[in-house]
Amino acid sequence: MTGPRYTPLVASLPATVPFVGPETQERLQGAPFRARLGANESVFGPSPNAISAMAQAAQDTWMYGDPENHDLRNALAKHENVAPGNIIVGEGIDGLLGYLVRMLTEPGDAIITSDGAYPTFNFHVAGYGGALHKVPYRDDHEDPAALLDKAGEVDAKLIYFANPDNPMGSWQPPAVVEDMAANVPPGCLLVLDEAYAQFLAAGDVPRIAADNPQVIRMRTFSKAYGMAGARVGYGIGAPDLIMAFNKVRNHFGMTRISQAGALAALGDINYLAEVIGRVSESRTRIAKIASDNGLAALPSAANFVTIDCGRDGTFAQAVLQQLIARGVFVRMPFVAPQNRCIRVSAGTAADLEILAQTLPDALDAARATG
Amino acid sequence: MTGPRYTPLVASLPATVPFVGPETQERLQGAPFRARLGANESVFGPSPNAISAMAQAAQDTWMYGDPENHDLRNALAKHENVAPGNIIVGEGIDGLLGYLVRMLTEPGDAIITSDGAYPTFNFHVAGYGGALHKVPYRDDHEDPAALLDKAGEVDAKLIYFANPDNPMGSWQPPAVVEDMAANVPPGCLLVLDEAYAQFLAAGDVPRIAADNPQVIRMRTFSKAYGMAGARVGYGIGAPDLIMAFNKVRNHFGMTRISQAGALAALGDINYLAEVIGRVSESRTRIAKIASDNGLAALPSAANFVTIDCGRDGTFAQAVLQQLIARGVFVRMPFVAPQNRCIRVSAGTAADLEILAQTLPDALDAARATG
Repeated sequence: MTGPRYTPLVASLPATVPFVGPETQERLQGAPFRARLGANESVFGPSPNAISAMAQAAQDTWMYGDPENHDLRNALAKHENVAPGNIIVGEGIDGLLGYLVRMLTEPGDAIITSDGAYPTFNFHVAGYGGALHKVPYRDDHEDPAALLDKAGEVDAKLIYFANPDNPMGSWQPPAVVEDMAANVPPGCLLVLDEAYAQFLAAGDVPRIAADNPQVIRMRTFSKAYGMAGARVGYGIGAPDLIMAFNKVRNHFGMTRISQAGALAALGDINYLAEVIGRVSESRTRIAKIASDNGLAALPSAANFVTIDCGRDGTFAQAVLQQLIARGVFVRMPFVAPQNRCIRVSAGTAADLEILAQTLPDALDAARATG
Repeated sequence: MTGPRYTPLVASLPATVPFVGPETQERLQGAPFRARLGANESVFGPSPNAISAMAQAAQDTWMYGDPENHDLRNALAKHENVAPGNIIVGEGIDGLLGYLVRMLTEPGDAIITSDGAYPTFNFHVAGYGGALHKVPYRDDHEDPAALLDKAGEVDAKLIYFANPDNPMGSWQPPAVVEDMAANVPPGCLLVLDEAYAQFLAAGDVPRIAADNPQVIRMRTFSKAYGMAGARVGYGIGAPDLIMAFNKVRNHFGMTRISQAGALAALGDINYLAEVIGRVSESRTRIAKIASDNGLAALPSAANFVTIDCGRDGTFAQAVLQQLIARGVFVRMPFVAPQNRCIRVSAGTAADLEILAQTLPDALDAARATG
């Protein structure tokens, strides 16, 4: 009796995961975090309308969700001023990235990203055997020209580019992104991850035709809409590409409650504006806490602030561990030189008071070990 | 400017979907169904405890769900009397089947199922390029001996077998299933879909060691637990196989609300027993409605009853369409000779009264066209 015969690709994959969850850390520590500022979730929560809609939908959960996501897809099309045929709804950007990578990637196919950008994208590329080419950040920004050059050089099928960037919070002027979209090499697709786009100033959001066959934009309800746990993402792209998702996606994958919640959240423009304002205040407060401790906060157009700890990755890692030991959940970039930083998500005033109280001790402790 | 370069496999896939949702049919008809009896959902809904837990969790949905599904996984392990390492939680059985097929299937690999069994499994096999071999039903039952024989003959990597079966509602004695599990060919894995297992009499549930490396059992909260729209399934299998899911799964794919709901549902044993009793009553009522109309209901150990319409597939299709036109959502088997039947999910007394009132007219109309 022998066990299952995995594909050679799956057999070769490491058992690593893109992220360890804060709950895992809490179980290891035996105590809950005092401030949950590590996953770029929105502590301000979803719109009260979305909470009611989800609570109401709980009793309807005996029914499968609509596999076409019809109502949400139509509302999103209206919201984005595109046709419903330009919109694909899926189980978070993570889910959509998985489908997209699967659609394009055979073992050995060249895929481009920035070195230190979103690890879940890399997880999917590895999972389908793609040959991932990483381009360095330039001055803490993803580098559009270098990404395009590398894509042309290796005949890439896909480029991943996040604007605003995670984990650095940096962004590119809209003209740069629009120019990038207009110069994707033949046969290549640009996936523009706009998870944090709502936090950009209105004039900073690039304009890209939804029907451009070489670009797909990804948006989410996980960040500004405060619904990370609901798993609702969407892509905006050319109809042929959008239709192709139907060949591979889990048609009944969306929960009925999440569909209802996202629809209600989308309709509450005032609440979204309020959250964006509170995130902005929170970024200012985090930057002040950093400077009070002699550290430099990087400019951010996202719902987090990346703080330069002023030394190398080992030191930033020590600061991170000292914060975690004090009940403050934060994360940090994985790759040098960005890993001289820690990344702090926007928090409530109470959350940031805990940060303000713990950071000096955490820094002292990190310096003592360093 | 050229579009994306899909893999040859994805380019070759048809755009068909496993199921058209009832909402799509309602939009086409311009009216909601009067009775929703087509998707084997549970009209009796989730446990009130689960509804409260989900409503309560709505406000926590700003947080990602625990990617390890720790609490649910541990509760399931206790419930199933296995170790947590024997349990994988995922986005419904559909999601887990997708991961499983991906882990084992390279283009051309032989996979076995029954001709007319669950189409979503076939969708996944096609999506990864597997060579699907279909074994006929025998007397409206999936045929374990024939499935094993075919697997040996074509050196299959995976056998799909549902017990109880959908769409026929039939089941195999536990000794037959246990014998099947003990005789899976070397290098082959049996996926035993037990979505409807809670409806089996206690003595009819097969006993299979969780550590058997050649079997994975799939269970769900979509049927007896009444949470189809929450997308919670789980697999029970050997630790090596369970761990391998971590190489490919969407780690943050479970919604926080669904995790909370499933945990609460699992704890409400009395409600589950009540639902099983009501489903049993409902099956009896459906069988009576069938016989009142001169039709034969097949025995069922699931939450639906398959009704033999007494002629061929064309006639059953006409009956189905006439029911749908009268606001009764039902489905039917896809393949002859099973497609002489329609399939009616358990309903409330009010649902079944609508069925009782519409079936005579639907039959008359079908006979008039046939």
